[in-house]
Amino acid sequence: AKFNPVVPEAAKDADFLMLGNLTPAIQIGVIKQMAKRPKLIVLDTMNFWMDSAWDDLMEVLTMIDVLTINDEEARQLSGKHSLVAAAKKILTMGPKYLVVKKGEHGALLFSKDEMFSAPAMPLESVFDPTGAGDTFAGGFIGYLAKQNDVTFEHLRTALIHGSALASFTVEKFGTQRLQDVTDAELKNRLMDFHNLVRFSL
Amino acid sequence: AKFNPVVPEAAKDADFLMLGNLTPAIQIGVIKQMAKRPKLIVLDTMNFWMDSAWDDLMEVLTMIDVLTINDEEARQLSGKHSLVAAAKKILTMGPKYLVVKKGEHGALLFSKDEMFSAPAMPLESVFDPTGAGDTFAGGFIGYLAKQNDVTFEHLRTALIHGSALASFTVEKFGTQRLQDVTDAELKNRLMDFHNLVRFSL
Repeated sequence: AKFNPVVPEAAKDADFLMLGNLTPAIQIGVIKQMAKRPKLIVLDTMNFWMDSAWDDLMEVLTMIDVLTINDEEARQLSGKHSLVAAAKKILTMGPKYLVVKKGEHGALLFSKDEMFSAPAMPLESVFDPTGAGDTFAGGFIGYLAKQNDVTFEHLRTALIHGSALASFTVEKFGTQRLQDVTDAELKNRLMDFHNLVRFSL
Repeated sequence: AKFNPVVPEAAKDADFLMLGNLTPAIQIGVIKQMAKRPKLIVLDTMNFWMDSAWDDLMEVLTMIDVLTINDEEARQLSGKHSLVAAAKKILTMGPKYLVVKKGEHGALLFSKDEMFSAPAMPLESVFDPTGAGDTFAGGFIGYLAKQNDVTFEHLRTALIHGSALASFTVEKFGTQRLQDVTDAELKNRLMDFHNLVRFSL
């Protein structure tokens, strides 16, 4: 209860802010320490805070741009079973974009007017899933920071980048595989995602 | 136990045969009534036959080209949890292609060397799901029959056609909506599927 992270001076004017899954009060505290409003704030949260810190969660949702949660959490937060209906409701609570993570079934991205379905790469074996979610978040916002422009088109590709990087993380223990990934390997994995979903009409 | 469907003369030289989910013995009986080996035989089955008619099921699997089952059934049939490992095993049992249906999470298509992930269209409400699976099967093999050529590329598109048609079926009771669908509406729905998954790298 006494944990109050201090944002280093050098990070206070960051344009892209990723808030990991801590108490909503701490997430609010971090946003308030920023010297200016970042171009993009992405927030991860979970069912535990919906049960124990609802008011703070509602407040922080009004301060952010992208919310990432899983499908069950989207249903709990909205009270709606259909993920389309859940997204509509959640997008009235503050965020402009919602990412619904579905584990081995991929992820959905919603804005008020658009929808994107990102696949998960079917894997023969998962060596160690630890860190896959954090890798996804890092790859997602990292891609957007590099584009320095937040559009739905870029968000689509950012989701694929996050998924591709996370697919490396699970191949070895901890960060081992991630530290070894080359640019060529990442490019190949991105092409694998493209081939996985492409079809002609 | 006395149900023995008789294939009408006019259908005995069909090039494309869709075997619905009946006992494997009846499915074998239908294949044996065909005047010649169809270009493509698609077979639907379920966990009930895995429990009660294993030997017949193993026999009919050696006679077909495409097997369609759901994810839990793929795991039961193969004894493997990973769907990639399950597909590898099942493709040694006879079928050249495996379609794994995942309901609201879409479907996966496997050959020995390739893999395709078809999305499901996220829907705000489902009025009546009755017949969605049969519509999917009909749209799938109907598209292939029209191409008259079975390649992995065509199978990708066939999966999307089946999914698009099934997405109409659930909008009204029974076959009501399906009887009303226009070419233009189908084209629009196919574009919706394309937009749902597209991204640039």
